[in-house]
Amino acid sequence: MSNLDDLRDALRRFAAARDWDAYHTPKNLVMALSAEVGELTDLFQWLTPEQAAKAMEDPELAWNVRDELADVVHYLVRLADKLDVDLVEAAFAKIERNERRFPTGDRRPADLRPVE
Amino acid sequence: MSNLDDLRDALRRFAAARDWDAYHTPKNLVMALSAEVGELTDLFQWLTPEQAAKAMEDPELAWNVRDELADVVHYLVRLADKLDVDLVEAAFAKIERNERRFPTGDRRPADLRPVE
Amino acid sequence: MSNLDDLRDALRRFAAARDWDAYHTPKNLVMALSAEVGELTDLFQWLTPEQAAKAMEDPELAWNVRDELADVVHYLVRLADKLDVDLVEAAFAKIERNERRFPTGDRRPADLRPVE
Amino acid sequence: MSNLDDLRDALRRFAAARDWDAYHTPKNLVMALSAEVGELTDLFQWLTPEQAAKAMEDPELAWNVRDELADVVHYLVRLADKLDVDLVEAAFAKIERNERRFPTGDRRPADLRPVE
Repeated sequence: MSNLDDLRDALRRFAAARDWDAYHTPKNLVMALSAEVGELTDLFQWLTPEQAAKAMEDPELAWNVRDELADVVHYLVRLADKLDVDLVEAAFAKIERNERRFPTGDRRPADLRPVE
Repeated sequence: MSNLDDLRDALRRFAAARDWDAYHTPKNLVMALSAEVGELTDLFQWLTPEQAAKAMEDPELAWNVRDELADVVHYLVRLADKLDVDLVEAAFAKIERNERRFPTGDRRPADLRPVE
Repeated sequence: MSNLDDLRDALRRFAAARDWDAYHTPKNLVMALSAEVGELTDLFQWLTPEQAAKAMEDPELAWNVRDELADVVHYLVRLADKLDVDLVEAAFAKIERNERRFPTGDRRPADLRPVE
Repeated sequence: MSNLDDLRDALRRFAAARDWDAYHTPKNLVMALSAEVGELTDLFQWLTPEQAAKAMEDPELAWNVRDELADVVHYLVRLADKLDVDLVEAAFAKIERNERRFPTGDRRPADLRPVE
């Protein structure tokens, strides 16, 4: 993977060349990110967990998954740019907080509400 | 920003140390990504566009925005890892496709449905 | 508005006639609901608050908004049916809880994080 | 289930008593709906399909599911009220369109992208 800074800059140029910065407000970009995650969800909603795990073995589905993930990344990087947040730095800082919240030995995801 | 590969590896280690890989199936991770974008949306839903544009001037809100963005990045990177997708490569490839879909001069975002 | 019970029954018959019940598990229906809300979000994401308030004055946009709202209702009613939840009863019960959480005089929405 | 009109009126009174109508613009309500669906998703994300199907057998989880479904209904009804859309009428009209799109005999959900 190359650097996210290059991607951020390419997306800046893309938006600037089309006068789209007026649309790319933080509030709008949060909605756009949410809509794109909805399109990604649409690709997986009817698949069993087993089918979903093999999603990339189907060429058409794999293409669509890559395409929707790309849209998610675009709006996430644009949003972080507009908010002046370093995504990778924020993600590493959160891992440190999570190390304290979930000391090794904890066997369940953070938000799991188990059904027994 | 540092490399996304390092982040992916750190998230792998985090999950492995807690036996969370069984939960981190593609279908579950799509849902987790979606839920985290919901939490990010929650932070912006009642703000005017003007307030949202100044979100990072409020220290508490800024902290929460960074925290939720970090969660979004975590699940997005985990999902891409499980699907074996290079997010940055996919994002650059999509920019190329978008360059053809929206030649310079187009003045509106891709999905805009104008209201006149 | 007519009764939600009739709608629930019509959606049951629609799914049964197509053998779709196998797909309509609670987990899948939560994802489908989420994806449809994403499509609704897509219709509003680039609109200013003022344009969004006048969305129904544009015939094409109005048609799309009704269409997406209908999809949201479909999956919400199917989900509640599968979980055996009475949506209207649950909604009234929550109003009672919210009356206690937000006594009259409170001037802000529940989740507002103000930016000053 | 009682009538959605009564629920709409109760939600109108609740908002009016708290001066929340200024926040309840269509754009904001779409975001609030999306955030609440995110909270619902959070309840199901780590469950297997089998666990999710039995979600209502766990009293605490069942309570949370009802609570989140109620929030989804609240914002959906508020949004439809602000847009002057009759949700049940729109949902029945969409069933008619879907009867034509998916004649009986079709064995797969509308959006299924099969993995073979």
